[in-house]
Order: sequence, then structure tokens, then C-alpha cells
Amino acid sequence: MSITVVGSIAYDAVRTPFGARERMLGGAATHFALAASFFDEVRVVGPVGGDFADADLARLRTRGTLTDDVHRVADGRTFFWSGEYGWNLNTCTTLDTQLGVFGGFDPVLSEGARDCDVLFLANIDPRLQASVLDQCTAPRWTALDSMNMWIEQARDELIAVVQRVDCVMLNDAEIRQLTGRPSLAAAARELLAMGPAAVIAKEGEYGAVLFSREGFFSLPAYPLESVLDPTGAGDTFAGGVAGYVAAQRDRPVDHELLCTAMAYGTAAASFNVEEFGTDRVARLTFDELAARVAELHRMTQFTITPLQESTA
Amino acid sequence: MSITVVGSIAYDAVRTPFGARERMLGGAATHFALAASFFDEVRVVGPVGGDFADADLARLRTRGTLTDDVHRVADGRTFFWSGEYGWNLNTCTTLDTQLGVFGGFDPVLSEGARDCDVLFLANIDPRLQASVLDQCTAPRWTALDSMNMWIEQARDELIAVVQRVDCVMLNDAEIRQLTGRPSLAAAARELLAMGPAAVIAKEGEYGAVLFSREGFFSLPAYPLESVLDPTGAGDTFAGGVAGYVAAQRDRPVDHELLCTAMAYGTAAASFNVEEFGTDRVARLTFDELAARVAELHRMTQFTITPLQESTA
Repeated sequence: MSITVVGSIAYDAVRTPFGARERMLGGAATHFALAASFFDEVRVVGPVGGDFADADLARLRTRGTLTDDVHRVADGRTFFWSGEYGWNLNTCTTLDTQLGVFGGFDPVLSEGARDCDVLFLANIDPRLQASVLDQCTAPRWTALDSMNMWIEQARDELIAVVQRVDCVMLNDAEIRQLTGRPSLAAAARELLAMGPAAVIAKEGEYGAVLFSREGFFSLPAYPLESVLDPTGAGDTFAGGVAGYVAAQRDRPVDHELLCTAMAYGTAAASFNVEEFGTDRVARLTFDELAARVAELHRMTQFTITPLQESTA
Repeated sequence: MSITVVGSIAYDAVRTPFGARERMLGGAATHFALAASFFDEVRVVGPVGGDFADADLARLRTRGTLTDDVHRVADGRTFFWSGEYGWNLNTCTTLDTQLGVFGGFDPVLSEGARDCDVLFLANIDPRLQASVLDQCTAPRWTALDSMNMWIEQARDELIAVVQRVDCVMLNDAEIRQLTGRPSLAAAARELLAMGPAAVIAKEGEYGAVLFSREGFFSLPAYPLESVLDPTGAGDTFAGGVAGYVAAQRDRPVDHELLCTAMAYGTAAASFNVEEFGTDRVARLTFDELAARVAELHRMTQFTITPLQESTA
């Protein structure tokens, strides 16, 4: 069994109030794979340019991730993104985007990638997401991410893919934008009515919430005193969620399973933001990940003490 | 035993995308009292003008709240605030503020109010908050709220009060502003070092988090498809928290107790925003409140299923 992720492999340049890094390995598929690889075999589908370094390919292969579907375009350049974060890291301004080989990306999956048990469609053109779904034989669980650009430029195509996946994972603002509904709960209900069994709203430093036909679940972000680089947190979260789903291959992917999956995703994302780029998750251990899941569990428990209304 | 709250009693005019209301009962002390009165006897300390209606005084007295310390200035006007909320209710623009009798407020507490078990200093000038602390004989638990204006105009005076209370309840942005620290966790640790045993950060639609010397706790807001008027949510939350603390008079106010208190505060706040002003909480029942606390409990639980790292 295995996980296939289709998305960007990139070089990122990041400036934050706490430092800056030029041209480090990044991209949605990269961050996803580094987290998901704790749980199952991961296949990454995405293009890189002739400038892509062997050391970065080696990092992408962390914990056994397969890169047979990483297509190297020798005369092209790897997707490059540059951004600057504001004072409290909650705002980000894109300084530069050079699509390079990612601009002509038209995924053709190998037999191994098509045969996946779990499929994650990272943030790419929804028409390409649909093409990947067409190619996959019978994934047990599928999820997608997207962004404001596709909501604005290819809304119908995005909705068409939403109707075909098991789980939608978007930022809360994107869920509002996609549906035009100011209430996140109402917006999520509208998406659930389109077909997915689950909608996960990513809320950045506030955590993430799950809406399913079985109910609602909320999990905070792991509290950190020092965040160096939020880039890739959402994809790392998705990798933890999808990885946990893949690891639980004999269980139905229901509300309860997704709650626990979100805890692994949240824990993975919390490590990701503690250092620049992929540095921290590349050397993360499963024990460290599990310990933080246990901490998240403690941080969200409370007891209901029976109480009678005052008659004072 | 009783709870004393010192703060504004006001008339609010609110515009939202879903409707508008002119001149309805509001104010921090009002919203606080309506929630806290489920748990213990509440005394409200604050001024009103000659324009304050008997019907509004009657509503303030819901569930037995005492208004002996509501000082009526016959030739003055009640504090008036007018605001307009944006599309998703997460932004609010103040249209008008007329302090009226609140501008000359200098609280002098009755013996009953001074004798309180629990004291909540709602958002007023920190010099007045200090004066109230001086007057109270031996409250078992004290908490304060504040706002950006005081952080900017009376920061030293506010810090001096922070050092004297058991719990600081501010918005997350205010906690960052007060400490100058971009990390909420680091900012909260700095406030804890000043003296309070607990710092509760209110995060609006995302819920609230608790930092104490014993740990961290996070609770989401109760998910609502329809929010009519967020005004007073923070004070209603504070009323539920302080009320629960007051009701648990034989227990130490530790981390665990505050977690449960936050659930009551969150549940109370969720009802507050479902209708304009005080309408919903005024007719709320304790059973409805407790039922939503139980729902919040279900919405935040997850199980950790033992899992081994993949060796695929």
C-alpha cells in the first residue's frame, strides 16, 4: 500500500523577522512527503528543473519516499517562490514566483503512483487534479488542497474536483471564499453536501477544525514560543493526516479516525515551523512526533464537574 | 458569597450584514452579569444616566443580579457605543462612542460589593481597576480585562494591576501588544512572570486558550452557522468563567478548574452571539448552557490509537 502526492517541489526563499534563508528545498509535495513518510510508502509526483540538486533529491527521499515520478526537465528551472512574513508571522507577502517547469506540469502517473491507497492532490490547477483522479485506479481515500487563485480563476473546475474527493483541506478563508458564505460552519456544510465526507479547515496558528456528517472537531495548534518559518505548515499537516489514514488501512476513514489523524498532522506541522524549510521534519523521529500528539491530547482535555444553577 | 463586576453598562447600536439594532442594552458589566448570574449572586458596579430605562434595569437584574451599586446620574447620559461589523463578523468599526456618565466614573463600592468572593475588573481605566482592588477586602479570585487604548495610554498603570490579579483575560492581539512579543506563548509567559497564575487569551471565533504555570489548554468556540451580533461575547465568556470559579468555592482555582470554567464561558458566549445584544442570554436556561458544555466536550475529544512507524 502507498500514498501518492501530486504537487510542487520547489526552491523557497523566506524572510522572517527572525532570519532569512535563500533557495532552500520546499514545495507542497515535499512538505507533505516528509510528514507522510512516517506512516507509509510515499510516491511524489511533480517536476523539477536541471538545477535541482542531488542533495535535495536525497532529502525528498527521507524515510523511503519514492521519487520515480519526480520528472526532471533538464533544460528547465525548478519552481521558485520567495516570501516575507510579518511581525507575528500571521501575514505573508509573496515577493517573487517563478513557475519554471511547474508552469508546464501535466502529471502522468507511473503504475505504482496510480495504484495508491491514499491520494493527496496538493495545490495545483484543479484541471490537473481531475486528470490525476482519472488516472488513479481505486484509491481508498482522496483529499485535495487548493488556493485563492484557483477559486477566482477556475472555480467550476475546482468544485468539480471537490465533488470527487473524500476530504477537502483548505484554509478557513478559502472555504468562505469558495462558497461565498461568511459562516465557516455553513460554508463547510455546503461543501459536505457536494460529496466529500469531510472538510478540514486549516486555521494557521489557531489550529484546524473538522466538519463531517458525524459532527465537528477542533484541535489547536501546538503552542510554540519560537516559530521560525511557517512555510509548508499546511502541507506538513496534510501529510500527517493522510499518513495516519494510510497507516490505519483496516479501519473506515470516519470522523473518529480523522480526529486522531489531525493530531498527528498538527504535531508534524508544529515541528515544521520550528526551523526553516524542511530542516526539522527531515530529522524528526516518530517518538518525538508521538510525544507531541500525547501532549496535544493533554492540552485539549477537560472534565465536566456536575454543577447546579445557583439559587443564591 | 458573591461576584462583583465593575465596568460599563451601556446602550449599543449595532449594524451587521444580517441586520441592525438601535439603542439596546449592552456594556461589559451587563454581558458579564447575565452569564455569571447562573452560578452565584452578582453585584454590578457602574454608572447609568437619567435616560436608563426601568426595563433595562430589570434585565440587568436577571437571575437575581443586585444593582445597588448601579449609580444613576439623573442629569447624565448612559454610555453609548455604536459599531458596524464586516462581512464575516471578524472585523468591527466603531462608528460612535459617547462616554456620558461613564467618563466621570470613579467607583466607590458598597460593603456588599467590597466583600465579594470573586472580582472581575471589566475594561475600564487601569487606575480605576487599582482603586477597586484597594477597596475589596479579600477576594478569593480576581481577573481583569482591558483594551488597546489602555495599553497605549496607560501601559504602566495596566501592568501594575496585572501584577495584582489572579487572571488576565485579553484578546490574543492585546496580549501581544501589551508585551511587545509576537509569540502568544512567549507573551503569556511574560505576563505569568508578573504574578497572575493564569492568562486567558480570547481568540474570537477561534475560541480561547489558557496559559498557566501548570500548562496550556485550548478550547474552540462553539461552531455556529448563524451569528447575529458578536458584541459582548468576550464579557459573556468572562462571566461564565468567573461564575464557574465562584460556584466551585471549595476547590483551588487551578489549571484543571479553569479549563472547565472556560467551557462554561465558551458555551455562554456562543448563545450571546446568536441574537442581538442581551436577548438570548437573558432567557437562557442552565440546562441549555450545560448541554452546550457537554457538546463542546465531545467536539474536543480524540483517542490516541497506538501506531508504529511504517517500515514499508
